[in-house]
Amino acid sequence: MSEAVQTITGYHAICAAISSVGPQDAHATLYLHGQGSRGEQLERLARIHKVTVRRVDRREIDRIGGEKARGAVLVAALAGPSVRTLTDAIASIREQQAIVLVLDHLSDPHNLGAILRSADQFGVDFVVLPSRRAAGKTDAVLRSSAGAAAVVSTVEVPNIAAALEALKKADFWIYGADMTGEPVDQQQLSGRVALVLGSEGEGLSRLVRDRCDTVVRIPTGGTVDSLNVSVSAGILLYEASRQQQRFRDPS
Amino acid sequence: MSEAVQTITGYHAICAAISSVGPQDAHATLYLHGQGSRGEQLERLARIHKVTVRRVDRREIDRIGGEKARGAVLVAALAGPSVRTLTDAIASIREQQAIVLVLDHLSDPHNLGAILRSADQFGVDFVVLPSRRAAGKTDAVLRSSAGAAAVVSTVEVPNIAAALEALKKADFWIYGADMTGEPVDQQQLSGRVALVLGSEGEGLSRLVRDRCDTVVRIPTGGTVDSLNVSVSAGILLYEASRQQQRFRDPS
Repeated sequence: MSEAVQTITGYHAICAAISSVGPQDAHATLYLHGQGSRGEQLERLARIHKVTVRRVDRREIDRIGGEKARGAVLVAALAGPSVRTLTDAIASIREQQAIVLVLDHLSDPHNLGAILRSADQFGVDFVVLPSRRAAGKTDAVLRSSAGAAAVVSTVEVPNIAAALEALKKADFWIYGADMTGEPVDQQQLSGRVALVLGSEGEGLSRLVRDRCDTVVRIPTGGTVDSLNVSVSAGILLYEASRQQQRFRDPS
Repeated sequence: MSEAVQTITGYHAICAAISSVGPQDAHATLYLHGQGSRGEQLERLARIHKVTVRRVDRREIDRIGGEKARGAVLVAALAGPSVRTLTDAIASIREQQAIVLVLDHLSDPHNLGAILRSADQFGVDFVVLPSRRAAGKTDAVLRSSAGAAAVVSTVEVPNIAAALEALKKADFWIYGADMTGEPVDQQQLSGRVALVLGSEGEGLSRLVRDRCDTVVRIPTGGTVDSLNVSVSAGILLYEASRQQQRFRDPS
């Protein structure tokens, strides 16, 4: 179990993190300052999850949580959903329909946060991240993800290309996102789907691109640059989710 | 013509802005420091658009453009595409298929920048913004948009609800985005479509929501919060663009 004490600020981030504090962390503490309905909600949630609540003065909050704390800081060792190996994560998938997101060296924590938020919304089975040279699940990521980083299952791997091979063996079809690819809305994204996104500046590395079964693009026709990577990820997840009818109303 | 001298930094932002500097601005100047292929490209572009180029030292660049300048700053009065009135913008649409984006009081310049970038990519006809109490087209927005803010046509209006009425009279169907709406992929987004997004925290205001013909949602099922507003905007633009077959390959 990879556990490290984290300092979490931001209302949504704390809400999400509190729910993943288990009895394994007897020292988890929520520091609060001031009166307000959000503070009260956090306090109630903390008591449900057996997290100690301490009322302290503002200076103490700022000292623990920094400028962005705004009256609440959670200090806890999170046994998050990120402790699994790729083998375990793949083995946990029982369905013939699945969506896995593979992020090949994103560098911006805000983009990673926004993508994890989308991954939560679209019910991604798990997210594969490189264990080195990339934005990790830091406090900034947790905050940008509005807390989703604490609930989305992630797997860190030393080698993305090898991870794609492992996914292929488990009957995943690998779709790499690149502007030179086939229009994504004309692909069949049913079954087990892995969507691979490259870094903000460089896109997919050659090694990763060569491992993809199909390279897809979002059909656009702009004059400047391209879509932001977190917007691209959201659109690809939407398209896969739409085709798989993940959230179709019963009718 | 609303022209104001702007200070623009960032490679993509400068590229886009230079192309919209017209002969009306005889004082437009690109300040450069250092050698590099990006600097050379900017210099070439500046000469094409009759923008004065000045080589200065690093301190001068930082003084003019601030920390984020990284060796290049453009100072110019941009007669951008944002000088039109709503009436002119509506009158300029000749097609029976159109996409207009209406942003009801976004507060985060990064979100506005990312949305303008998507608007450029999906060929939005124009973007309607409130003229007060919202993120405007600042330098931060231009940078977050990777320069797209300089090329996307925007219209500022004093009253969003009144703008929706004007769009309705021009045969636009108004779709407001809200989690309580109908699944967007089950709507017909053909014809003239206006997509309305609310602010990050509050969503659509009651007044604006009441003016919408249909309220739509992106079908999701997450546990934490919701999609980021710029991701939502990107997905709605993708869905409208997909249904209108805007960028379908000839086959």
